[in-house]
Amino acid sequence: MYKSGSATRRCFMSGLAATFGISRLSPFGSTTQERRQVQKSADAVRTDLQSEYDKMVKLSSNENPYGPSEAVMKAMTGAWKYANRYGYPEGGITEAIAAHHGVTPDQVLLGSGSAEVLKAADDAFLPGHLKVVGVEPTFEVVYRFATNSRAEAITVPLRDDHTADMNEIVRVTRRNARDVGLIYICNPNNPTGSVVRKDDIKLLLDSVPEDIPVLIDEAYHHFVENPDYESSLKYVLEGRNVIVTRTFSKIAALAGMRLGYGIAPREVIDQMRRVIYGSINAVVKYGGVAALQDTAYQAKIKQLNSQVRERTTAQLKILGYEIIPSDTNFFMVNVRTDVTPVREEFRKRGILVGRKFSPMDTWLRVSVGSDEDMRFFVSALREICPA
Amino acid sequence: MYKSGSATRRCFMSGLAATFGISRLSPFGSTTQERRQVQKSADAVRTDLQSEYDKMVKLSSNENPYGPSEAVMKAMTGAWKYANRYGYPEGGITEAIAAHHGVTPDQVLLGSGSAEVLKAADDAFLPGHLKVVGVEPTFEVVYRFATNSRAEAITVPLRDDHTADMNEIVRVTRRNARDVGLIYICNPNNPTGSVVRKDDIKLLLDSVPEDIPVLIDEAYHHFVENPDYESSLKYVLEGRNVIVTRTFSKIAALAGMRLGYGIAPREVIDQMRRVIYGSINAVVKYGGVAALQDTAYQAKIKQLNSQVRERTTAQLKILGYEIIPSDTNFFMVNVRTDVTPVREEFRKRGILVGRKFSPMDTWLRVSVGSDEDMRFFVSALREICPA
Repeated sequence: MYKSGSATRRCFMSGLAATFGISRLSPFGSTTQERRQVQKSADAVRTDLQSEYDKMVKLSSNENPYGPSEAVMKAMTGAWKYANRYGYPEGGITEAIAAHHGVTPDQVLLGSGSAEVLKAADDAFLPGHLKVVGVEPTFEVVYRFATNSRAEAITVPLRDDHTADMNEIVRVTRRNARDVGLIYICNPNNPTGSVVRKDDIKLLLDSVPEDIPVLIDEAYHHFVENPDYESSLKYVLEGRNVIVTRTFSKIAALAGMRLGYGIAPREVIDQMRRVIYGSINAVVKYGGVAALQDTAYQAKIKQLNSQVRERTTAQLKILGYEIIPSDTNFFMVNVRTDVTPVREEFRKRGILVGRKFSPMDTWLRVSVGSDEDMRFFVSALREICPA
Repeated sequence: MYKSGSATRRCFMSGLAATFGISRLSPFGSTTQERRQVQKSADAVRTDLQSEYDKMVKLSSNENPYGPSEAVMKAMTGAWKYANRYGYPEGGITEAIAAHHGVTPDQVLLGSGSAEVLKAADDAFLPGHLKVVGVEPTFEVVYRFATNSRAEAITVPLRDDHTADMNEIVRVTRRNARDVGLIYICNPNNPTGSVVRKDDIKLLLDSVPEDIPVLIDEAYHHFVENPDYESSLKYVLEGRNVIVTRTFSKIAALAGMRLGYGIAPREVIDQMRRVIYGSINAVVKYGGVAALQDTAYQAKIKQLNSQVRERTTAQLKILGYEIIPSDTNFFMVNVRTDVTPVREEFRKRGILVGRKFSPMDTWLRVSVGSDEDMRFFVSALREICPA
């Protein structure tokens, strides 16, 4: 396990600085020998950067710290033989997802991570001047994609208890109905970890114009134990204008492998399919099929995550920190000062934590790592921001 | 090695049929037990389909039949530890590509295969009514992406010797200058295997309006030995409005892993970066860095490919078949009858060959497989379409 220390911090920074130096050292007219030297030092810098990263305590990106299950690794290794192929059988990934949710394959859209389905929704449903409605802060890439496609976002602040205000989402949507092309709800919400209550989802879907698709991002679905929560897949099965996205990045620990999907009525999927690139790595298709079947691993991860999160947040509360109750594999703690310099202090100690999520400028988002990771975190937090 | 036979063909078809059957067998209201039974037979069907595919002689998709090099496999296996991560160091893939071509990292755009860069070019440069200009037939996904983005393609037929007519491309572009947003040239061209001569590329770039980007797709670059060919990267280095795409799918045998890139002036890259999704599998980023360095493997594949291709086409010519000279890992042979039923006959014999590329309806595109693959192919061709 990585130990904190400013020497390492210096080393990490010099690695990054050297990388930027290298970029500038690649002039158009360099000789082969010069290039070879640059190449050699670039390799050395890469190796340094990688070993620095490997040593860090990684609590910044809501990753699953335990890695893919044995069954998933076995399935992926077995698919190496398709590394050089385009036309290989896809392991039945689309059919397996469809069967898993009781839908037909034409109601499933694969993406290189569920974020690709979010981009497809923006590209399909926000042509011209149309806008996306959602809360702030949330998983904001949906807004960034929308801005790239020249649409804009209408955002609604969270309530004082940091939960999403569905009444306000409904009001804003109705007030701008002609200009709204998509509603985005992350449930549970990132970065707060709070669920949107099932009654609130029902209220939303019953209250907004039926021709506006509602995308419900259930990336953290598998971690939830809260009885007020339910998946919105049932609304897709009812034929409502709803898109539910899920990912293999979290519970299945395949973030780096890139696989997610959307489930929606066929006509909605068709509109997104026309604009998505959606060309997915062969190996992770096989990993995905194995992950769906490996329910024992999912149950183990869910339990471990919940146990470590509850132990950590209970300890922090006893120490006097304010915590937002979480149903996910991350939580927010109030550090009562701007998060950006705090994040840098953690980095100096070899710990990566979440960035600032404005306007919640004093709330630090911390992913749930291993038990040991969390002990490092708590000890560093007490040093950096005493309660 | 797979032996031909109608029994296998029946088996292959029943596998596909069963798959479709399974899809219909996933009703919304199925019980868990019913679903489990469906799951079990779906698994069996998947296994059948996969073992059928594995036995086929695969000459349909211009894949590298030898698979990734040992060094690449080692690098990819070493990156498994990032399967669960987002924020890992990327192995320096962008910097390695930039150094390899003597450009800066901001002149490099990664895609999940170079086709994602083609899509980004369409999305960036074909807003509204703008059209893409290119030859026909070529690697037509660039036209398909354009059609999805509601643009259209203006296509120019190949000359009688199956080469691209740059004079006509220039004429058509100038005639429609206000409506043209992008020019697409695949060099060497897929499906013909012919290069566009360096003088013709120069003529094109010197003759079309400078504000129209020219995308030159060099997916098959590494197989060319023809002195009339040169890479168009030098035009990017000159700062021209040129995008060159390359892929790790062909010479590096990573088609299923999805990695390619575009090289262009920074402002051109920036426009495409705004619209591309471009989220790439962690493992192949490391494989790509290793592939760039493994020049010995590239040289071996180039030599093997050229040797097997020349041996096969020489034999076919002696037998009386008409062949288009190829500088790639595939070639076209005139079967003097419609390709579609011919393709089916090959499939019955366990051999996958290229689809019909209209309007070249009697020309069969055949990928260069292993020596043994090609012996199977020649023997089946003599049976199906005697010269």
